[in-house]
Amino acid sequence: MSQAPPVTAAVLVIGDEILSGRTQDVNVATIARFLTPLGIDLLEARFVPDLEAEIVAAVNALRGRYSYLFTTGGIGPTHDDITADAIGAAFGLAVEHDPEALALLAARYKPEDFNDRRRRMARVPRGASLIKNAVSAAPGFQIENVFVLAGVPKIMQAMLDDVAPRLARGTPVISRSITLRLAEGRIAEPLAAIQRAHRAVTIGSYPFFAESMPAGGAAGTTLVVRGRDAEAVEAAERDIEGLALSLGVRPEVARNPG
Amino acid sequence: MSQAPPVTAAVLVIGDEILSGRTQDVNVATIARFLTPLGIDLLEARFVPDLEAEIVAAVNALRGRYSYLFTTGGIGPTHDDITADAIGAAFGLAVEHDPEALALLAARYKPEDFNDRRRRMARVPRGASLIKNAVSAAPGFQIENVFVLAGVPKIMQAMLDDVAPRLARGTPVISRSITLRLAEGRIAEPLAAIQRAHRAVTIGSYPFFAESMPAGGAAGTTLVVRGRDAEAVEAAERDIEGLALSLGVRPEVARNPG
Repeated sequence: MSQAPPVTAAVLVIGDEILSGRTQDVNVATIARFLTPLGIDLLEARFVPDLEAEIVAAVNALRGRYSYLFTTGGIGPTHDDITADAIGAAFGLAVEHDPEALALLAARYKPEDFNDRRRRMARVPRGASLIKNAVSAAPGFQIENVFVLAGVPKIMQAMLDDVAPRLARGTPVISRSITLRLAEGRIAEPLAAIQRAHRAVTIGSYPFFAESMPAGGAAGTTLVVRGRDAEAVEAAERDIEGLALSLGVRPEVARNPG
Repeated sequence: MSQAPPVTAAVLVIGDEILSGRTQDVNVATIARFLTPLGIDLLEARFVPDLEAEIVAAVNALRGRYSYLFTTGGIGPTHDDITADAIGAAFGLAVEHDPEALALLAARYKPEDFNDRRRRMARVPRGASLIKNAVSAAPGFQIENVFVLAGVPKIMQAMLDDVAPRLARGTPVISRSITLRLAEGRIAEPLAAIQRAHRAVTIGSYPFFAESMPAGGAAGTTLVVRGRDAEAVEAAERDIEGLALSLGVRPEVARNPG
């Protein structure tokens, strides 16, 4: 089966509030699910605090290693919003007010409310292109292979609509989830053999626990077969279904987007 | 004010299911909230897939840089559970069945169910100490400053009870959340001045949006003052409250654990 070259990505989540546990990040999972149908593999995520040196180091490590880097957070009007400056520093580029971004923001505020701090939200590294969104006037921006997005999930998600057409696409991963009402440890040995026999797929094994079970009692296992070749995925799925039937349980199969 | 030396930490989340967006990580936030009252600063988190080379590289980068590293995931019985071997590789240590871990697991299973794959959950790098938990028989383990925990949140959380007494403690961060019914951009300028005047604290600014507002309309801002010196935190809090009153809004203050 002919396949597109691999396209990879990382996410950098910027913000003290994530690392203090005040805010539960949901943007990594949203970006992961956005990338899956595009055939782009999310291979790493990092969370760093609002410290320029930490952001710069992570941006430079990740943008060099993956096809794309998505950052979230730190693009608002307050003193702790330092992402634009950190991205500029990472690229060695001056950070300047973008005329189009200023116009977008000016349209949102009464003139007397459009203060210097709000104007700061129009600052982007020289040469960046804006990432607009339907929710907020404040844009994100793209510089080379780095996409700088908002931290507020609703705004971050809206920005992905503007990002999607800019991305190279890979061959999408196909996946099947097969749920068995068997403890993970009961199927681990034959499952390892199935994985060895199907090297074109990865098989993840995820136990789950029913609240009604005794503490720690395994209520079952969901096996997730992922791969880019539909026939290979289906062949592994058939072997898992055969394993389930040989152990006297009915496999519950779901076709996932990725 | 006399302060303990800084104690720092990182979290490494291991698992394809997190990076595919199938599973929403909640362990980073749980560990963050666990560390706060101990005075330990969580300064970085990384998510990596179930690939040994990636796990080894991240473990070695993070364990050298922070006082403690907590890993989550990959310690079950199936072929995709490779964390013990990866940690062994990171430390250059052989990974062997631990007699105490075998005994814990043997007590959990009927002899005919205690198969080789379940015995694998007793494998730890030589010299590691076990991390027990009240939910599952399968232990995590500690080797030097690295704590290897389960990925299932309920089990991970139970393991933290066994980890807590092993940790050096720092001076806990004190925090105040002050919520103002004002858009972030309206207070950004005076807030930056307050941050400059109170260098012993960090002030985070987090806008929030009411569902009833027009799309993107800011319903208000929560300011989080964090620091290790109670007087410094209270002084910054007073200035923020003064700012609020000068703008005609009543500040809503919450005393947080961290």
